[in-house]
Amino acid sequence: MPELEQLQDVGEFGLISRLTAGASPGCGVVTGIGDDAAVTTLAPGMQLLTSTDMLLEDVHFRRSWHDPYRLGRKSLAVNISDIAAMGGIPRWALLSLAIPADMPLDYLDRFSAGFLSMAAGHGVSLIGGDTCSSRAGLAISVTIMGEQLPAHILRRSGALPGDEIWVTGTLGDAALGLKLLEGGFDSAQPPNAAQPPNAAQSPNADHRPSTALPPECALSGVEGNDFLIARLLDPTPRAAVGQALATSGLLSAMIDVSDGVLSDFGHIAEQSGVGGIIQLDKLPLSAAFMASTHPSASPNYLAVSGGEDYELCFTAPPAHREKICRVMKKCGVQATPVGIVTSSREVAVLNADGSRHHTANAGYNHFS
Amino acid sequence: MPELEQLQDVGEFGLISRLTAGASPGCGVVTGIGDDAAVTTLAPGMQLLTSTDMLLEDVHFRRSWHDPYRLGRKSLAVNISDIAAMGGIPRWALLSLAIPADMPLDYLDRFSAGFLSMAAGHGVSLIGGDTCSSRAGLAISVTIMGEQLPAHILRRSGALPGDEIWVTGTLGDAALGLKLLEGGFDSAQPPNAAQPPNAAQSPNADHRPSTALPPECALSGVEGNDFLIARLLDPTPRAAVGQALATSGLLSAMIDVSDGVLSDFGHIAEQSGVGGIIQLDKLPLSAAFMASTHPSASPNYLAVSGGEDYELCFTAPPAHREKICRVMKKCGVQATPVGIVTSSREVAVLNADGSRHHTANAGYNHFS
Repeated sequence: MPELEQLQDVGEFGLISRLTAGASPGCGVVTGIGDDAAVTTLAPGMQLLTSTDMLLEDVHFRRSWHDPYRLGRKSLAVNISDIAAMGGIPRWALLSLAIPADMPLDYLDRFSAGFLSMAAGHGVSLIGGDTCSSRAGLAISVTIMGEQLPAHILRRSGALPGDEIWVTGTLGDAALGLKLLEGGFDSAQPPNAAQPPNAAQSPNADHRPSTALPPECALSGVEGNDFLIARLLDPTPRAAVGQALATSGLLSAMIDVSDGVLSDFGHIAEQSGVGGIIQLDKLPLSAAFMASTHPSASPNYLAVSGGEDYELCFTAPPAHREKICRVMKKCGVQATPVGIVTSSREVAVLNADGSRHHTANAGYNHFS
Repeated sequence: MPELEQLQDVGEFGLISRLTAGASPGCGVVTGIGDDAAVTTLAPGMQLLTSTDMLLEDVHFRRSWHDPYRLGRKSLAVNISDIAAMGGIPRWALLSLAIPADMPLDYLDRFSAGFLSMAAGHGVSLIGGDTCSSRAGLAISVTIMGEQLPAHILRRSGALPGDEIWVTGTLGDAALGLKLLEGGFDSAQPPNAAQPPNAAQSPNADHRPSTALPPECALSGVEGNDFLIARLLDPTPRAAVGQALATSGLLSAMIDVSDGVLSDFGHIAEQSGVGGIIQLDKLPLSAAFMASTHPSASPNYLAVSGGEDYELCFTAPPAHREKICRVMKKCGVQATPVGIVTSSREVAVLNADGSRHHTANAGYNHFS
């Protein structure tokens, strides 16, 4: 049996060729990978949206939990989620990797196949990046760019007292999935996750592992603990939903839920100069979350303050409720009103009986 | 004496406030730091230029060599250099930091002051980023965006046989500076490098350490080994020169010299489908390089294949020589013809007597 090809066999430029073999030039790309900078053009009248996220081994992910294919998908998904939260159209991505010297090329091929499958699914072109060696673990830095007409861009700062607070999808799944993994639950490798090394060369093939979360217009399929773990390892950014909501003109503010809805609605509240009441019993929970016997599944702590939902939280006047439901129905994604914006400058979570819910944690703090 | 403030005292959002306290909204910035994505606008008719670089502790820099102020400057400078190489106008930057838990806040304050001083010097606005904790060393990822009219953007692919090969400034200084540091040369901390913690709050003050490389229109000042080391630790991106050359319409191709002129001209050659002859005795050397008694200073190996010059290498028809000199004179930066583009598909380095120079290394390979 031949030895696995190693990084030092192909060198930096060989690696870049492998990583980008499945990347295809897309909308607005004038010059992609291979020059000092990429050259792109915005569509007429569009403004540029830019965001970046870093994922570090043993901080944001563990190689023993995250198969490389889904890690590649997730590293782009969390960035697309930021563009979705502005109502933008994701367009271009830069991918930087700091790679441990002993990492098998096969791992990187599968990572790349996952990254490019997420890109292809959202019309995103990989236009550049950086590769270097790492003395610690794998470090991933992704920058995403998108575009939108100025009138359709949604910010955190537009919420008004009396608006309803909404969330898409269900909350707490990923946080519960993390608890399961931390508790030793054996996450079965999805059957298609182990991509062949040449998977990166066929970007149009459907590399989605069969246990991955279904596309955002069909929130069903995987069940039980596998569903919860798939929500953690292979989140679905709400790009189409974000665009549909933004262009509807019905909303006053939007954010993506990455640190728990309490923390993230808190950012809307702070930047809008308002407060809010979130009703615990209204938080949408998945069937898998409700069926879980894990001690963290009850009470709803994880749905309020758990991280990595990558759903959208938005605000809108109550008069727009029906129209919002129609937009969401077209997208095939549920959205749920979970509270109300107030003028108090305080964000409170209430139990079903109206008493105040005391959360142990107001969201993830990276330096606590 | 009060204890140094630590990262965990201020938390993630406190840190972001400190890091960005000196950032001011700039050209084309609609929404800067604080939302899910930054919003910017390109000037009419402009195309977007994008590049990204990662700097890792103990791979790209050592904390014992790089004071944080100059590290901050350099982490943006190497990105600005990529925009310069396209002839672009640098505009906006994203800064991601993975930070060891025990890193003093003071270190980050000084890093930030350096980063923002480089930004202010080139009209760049810090519009976003990411911060997280690192279990290994400090990791820095910067994305730069710039703009330029399509007709003025210079690529690697336009060189034609018969064109002259030029380089700006001098070559090999930074590589020799690295040899000096590796050999134990004691780099004196520049007097102004130890910025007070609140330096980030006065972005318009001149934080440039007195031993830093002078601005790109005055290549003189610091001398000897200090000059060589300053070229390594505090490189000056050739942004104004790159724009002046690009808008002159005199050039056929351009790249920045980060891995040695042999390697980097090699990229021009490859993408233009040409070759070239570089004449060793024509490579521009600084007075400090020529005066150095370090064994690596002779022969000119470091000027051919040393890294981190961050000068520009460009090609142009010989008929444009005088006009190019006039452009460079206006910028106050020297440029030197060092060879000729050929149709051979091979890049050769010749000694003064016309014999072939055999280099030990064709540039830095990140995975060798």
